[in-house]
Amino acid sequence: MDNSERRYDSNHKLLFTPGPLTTSAGVKRAMLRDVGSRDQQFIEIIADVRRRLLALANVNQEQGYEAVIVQGSGTFGVEAVISSAVPDGGRLLVLVNGAYGERIAAMAKRHGLDVVAMTWSESEAVVPGSVDQRLNDDPAITHVAAIHCETTTGLINPVNDIARCVAKHGRAFILDSMSAFGAVALDLSKVCVDFVIASSNKCIEGVPGFSFVICKREALASCKGNARTLSLDLYDQWAGLERNGQFRFTPPTHVLLAFHRALIELDEEGGVKARAARYDENHQTLVKGMRRLGLQTYLASDVQGCIITSFHYPKDERFEFDVFYQQLAKRGFVIYPGKVSDADCFRIGHIGQLHRRDIEALVTAVGEILTEMGVETGANR
Amino acid sequence: MDNSERRYDSNHKLLFTPGPLTTSAGVKRAMLRDVGSRDQQFIEIIADVRRRLLALANVNQEQGYEAVIVQGSGTFGVEAVISSAVPDGGRLLVLVNGAYGERIAAMAKRHGLDVVAMTWSESEAVVPGSVDQRLNDDPAITHVAAIHCETTTGLINPVNDIARCVAKHGRAFILDSMSAFGAVALDLSKVCVDFVIASSNKCIEGVPGFSFVICKREALASCKGNARTLSLDLYDQWAGLERNGQFRFTPPTHVLLAFHRALIELDEEGGVKARAARYDENHQTLVKGMRRLGLQTYLASDVQGCIITSFHYPKDERFEFDVFYQQLAKRGFVIYPGKVSDADCFRIGHIGQLHRRDIEALVTAVGEILTEMGVETGANR
Repeated sequence: MDNSERRYDSNHKLLFTPGPLTTSAGVKRAMLRDVGSRDQQFIEIIADVRRRLLALANVNQEQGYEAVIVQGSGTFGVEAVISSAVPDGGRLLVLVNGAYGERIAAMAKRHGLDVVAMTWSESEAVVPGSVDQRLNDDPAITHVAAIHCETTTGLINPVNDIARCVAKHGRAFILDSMSAFGAVALDLSKVCVDFVIASSNKCIEGVPGFSFVICKREALASCKGNARTLSLDLYDQWAGLERNGQFRFTPPTHVLLAFHRALIELDEEGGVKARAARYDENHQTLVKGMRRLGLQTYLASDVQGCIITSFHYPKDERFEFDVFYQQLAKRGFVIYPGKVSDADCFRIGHIGQLHRRDIEALVTAVGEILTEMGVETGANR
Repeated sequence: MDNSERRYDSNHKLLFTPGPLTTSAGVKRAMLRDVGSRDQQFIEIIADVRRRLLALANVNQEQGYEAVIVQGSGTFGVEAVISSAVPDGGRLLVLVNGAYGERIAAMAKRHGLDVVAMTWSESEAVVPGSVDQRLNDDPAITHVAAIHCETTTGLINPVNDIARCVAKHGRAFILDSMSAFGAVALDLSKVCVDFVIASSNKCIEGVPGFSFVICKREALASCKGNARTLSLDLYDQWAGLERNGQFRFTPPTHVLLAFHRALIELDEEGGVKARAARYDENHQTLVKGMRRLGLQTYLASDVQGCIITSFHYPKDERFEFDVFYQQLAKRGFVIYPGKVSDADCFRIGHIGQLHRRDIEALVTAVGEILTEMGVETGANR
């Protein structure tokens, strides 16, 4: 679907979700091709994908960084890192303020790792000073894991400050940057992160099918022999790619072709900075429009990112989320069902091939549907 | 690429590999669509995919069978089963006659399972009588794992006989049917297999990105709480799909749309029987043509399947595999690099959207290239 002839109806649904996303026609068309996973053409594309991923974090191989691709969803990539990086005898501290932090703690427990957590409410950012104190108090902690953008709410954690604090104490830092990487600046040449994890179907605007890890080669080397699984062995996956440019196990070739195209389009758009600006415009347009309708954001603006925004349900008993969702879907707008745990909220993602006019069209539809439901809005009040 | 206007050149490569495969235009076009992974439309497609998978094995939910989809490559699905099915205190017997049997033993060891193996050479099928004896001798064995088609060579193991033997002893049977399922008949209403694993990019002719497990609900229930990982927890993955039709973690939506289309096209072709007949014609055409050129098959015909065929290198020192591979690729034919461990062989896959005339075109190219290399063939001898 070309953006210039955008239509809004149930046959042309736009995804206002945190991934899978609305992707460009070019990204989807890149999948109209079968390539051999051990063929030279594909090997060269993978090498270029890995180079471009490092460049997005402002580093390269010469500076000691590596990009490793892991089949499966983002969670598979996070589990590959957690279960490969933390050795027996290590202790992992997870900084939790949402579902994705909790998931890291859960997977660490599943692998029998020694894991401890610090928890904040879903509307509060991680406080680096408290992390500093905890690392002072507990010298047994070897690794710290944090979430960049908590997709649960859309909150951005202060990762640069956390990274500095973890580095000061000489611990390893694992950053789940799933829904942030590619649109929230992260300069690894300036801040020290040992492992950054993200996935194909977030801000780089590819389609789902794999995750990737950007890491220090030194940190990767320390994973050797640690992994508790074969498929999610981060070191072996990297060693395989280094040996002959091939994956150990069949990669999602079409998804990788789409991702390669998505990386090129990200570059053409102007890189991370331009993408962040578009997403921020989407977010601002959305919040302004929704506030006009009387809807309130869940997060305070100082912790809110440009990826996804949570809104409180209207304080009106005539509001039914399921009807609201279905009516939006019927008009061609898929929003994200599911809510934060401590408040009645719904979430609207604004990443992917979405532009100001798409956001405006969504807000118009929201207003119409609320009116149809008899819910008082700023517009009809 | 429409089969009726097939061209053979380096811009239109055909994949003579065991997956990724040459897929139909319709399968690839199904990916030109973004769908929400938690949207009703997608949920219905997934339900249909799972129903159709059971039907291919001639069973359904009412008979107590379930289909579970696992993100990642085929190996991820096998590891999900092995690490979820075998409990602490269980013992796994792996029947090995190639790389994929060895891989199961390796992943079992990685998870700290009690694993034993019986090994045959790469050119010999598993002998059910010996398995019977072993199960008699070792009552501690709780699970038996076998490979349906050993992609290492193309050998088909006698799975019906193995299944009967395992059932007689009351042990659980795990079948890696990766490259066989969909083209080698497997009637679960007649033979007892607890877990069958295959992947999206083999005989069903989808694109790579996930694996699937067809299993007895009873066997699945016994996995509860066993899994050593979060991502590869087979029981939780199934429970998630059952709860609301959704995946626990982001599924490869585009790959699943392609697979749904591939299942419909398999049906339109005439199902497993018709597909097996086409693959068999491909295999017969290939062997006849290659023998005419003086090339010999590695396997005896009684253990050879219709999926992939291994050929001995020509007994001529002028033959160089790398040159042979590159020259074929230049003409648009991608064969499978890599060889069996005990002989100098190359492999040619004949699954996917390949037809007799494609095989004939490949054989013609092989003849021309051997002649160019100065290798004596039946044709120029």
